Amino acid sequence: MKTSRLTEKAEDTRTRILNAALGLFRRKGFEQTTMREIAKEAGVSLGNAYYYFESKEALVMAFYERAHLELPSRVTAAVAPATSLEEQLSAIIDAKFAYFASNRAFLGALFRHAADPSNPLSPFSTETHHIREADQQHFAQALENSGMYVPKDLTPHLPKMLWLYQMSLILFWIYDRSPRQRNTTLLKEKSVALLINGLKLIRLPILRSVRKRIVELVIAAEGEGNDA
Amino acid sequence: MKTSRLTEKAEDTRTRILNAALGLFRRKGFEQTTMREIAKEAGVSLGNAYYYFESKEALVMAFYERAHLELPSRVTAAVAPATSLEEQLSAIIDAKFAYFASNRAFLGALFRHAADPSNPLSPFSTETHHIREADQQHFAQALENSGMYVPKDLTPHLPKMLWLYQMSLILFWIYDRSPRQRNTTLLKEKSVALLINGLKLIRLPILRSVRKRIVELVIAAEGEGNDA
Repeated sequence: MKTSRLTEKAEDTRTRILNAALGLFRRKGFEQTTMREIAKEAGVSLGNAYYYFESKEALVMAFYERAHLELPSRVTAAVAPATSLEEQLSAIIDAKFAYFASNRAFLGALFRHAADPSNPLSPFSTETHHIREADQQHFAQALENSGMYVPKDLTPHLPKMLWLYQMSLILFWIYDRSPRQRNTTLLKEKSVALLINGLKLIRLPILRSVRKRIVELVIAAEGEGNDA
Repeated sequence: MKTSRLTEKAEDTRTRILNAALGLFRRKGFEQTTMREIAKEAGVSLGNAYYYFESKEALVMAFYERAHLELPSRVTAAVAPATSLEEQLSAIIDAKFAYFASNRAFLGALFRHAADPSNPLSPFSTETHHIREADQQHFAQALENSGMYVPKDLTPHLPKMLWLYQMSLILFWIYDRSPRQRNTTLLKEKSVALLINGLKLIRLPILRSVRKRIVELVIAAEGEGNDA
């Protein structure tokens, strides 16, 4: 019992440090926050903070892992009332926006820090591969739920393509300065509509060459040694 | 005559400072380089360096302006032997890669610094609007040269769309770790082919709704208050 209590206490401390860090990242900015301030805010010693997180980067990774744990149930709940693929895609993306809303500015700072895919904190890094894979499953599931016919040659690539589309929208959202990010809302509506329109047409025999080229493009974008 | 000589000398000094800065940005990195080091490398006093460039950011802007002056003739020369739109697009983009090759790593550092469109150094900022406009002209010219039929509703938006496509490729290139950036070369070939294929098909009556949505999407991406 004692071990279990200790583990629970350790878990509490870890959570307190992570929450303190996120609060400071939001208020002061990621670059400007030091481990010393995080420890002070969490009410632990600097050594103790380093015991749990060896760097600010480790705290960001923990923030990703938390999202990775917490998002699936939220996405599933958001998608449940949706029926069409269009509604489902919109619901998946809105669930992300809602979840990350309070950390939007922090994500902007993070992107500056981690735009390079070789940075472990990049959404395209080897270290975040499992998160990316899990996230792409939401799109695979939406495609399956919708019952929409997708040409066989496109099927294995579509979840990744939809995920990349989502990432572009999130990037736009991070830097969107319009009131309540309404430019992003508009862009999302227009682009989801275009996507669905394109998906419905792409099965046409006349677009077979385009489809083949899209698949080739996705494979080329993955590249040798890349890990998207 | 004296004034003219002085101006020439001033121009020399300015160029020397800019070249010293770019050399240091390449070797040491943008963030790590100080104005003091730039002045020393250029053989001028710190005060003199600040007289010409009030900050490292001003040096980056001067680097952009130089590219803005030097690129058009290079692009024109590169495009000259090309006939088809596919060859022209490829030539325009290759000319950029060739021009920026020695500063590729520096552009990566710069992108981290200036991903936010509200940063004056962003390729999407108000301050770089004239450079963006001029660059889009290369694509407008290529379209005109090719004599390719483009539906009227798409015509005013196409140069900007091609420019955005180019910027995505440049971003991919900046972080491409494959030998001689061959992943970028492959991606460029595949994506230019897809673009041309799409452009040839987009005039079909059956794709009119897609075309309409693409136009709406471009307009939405520009957004209110944005300046892309």
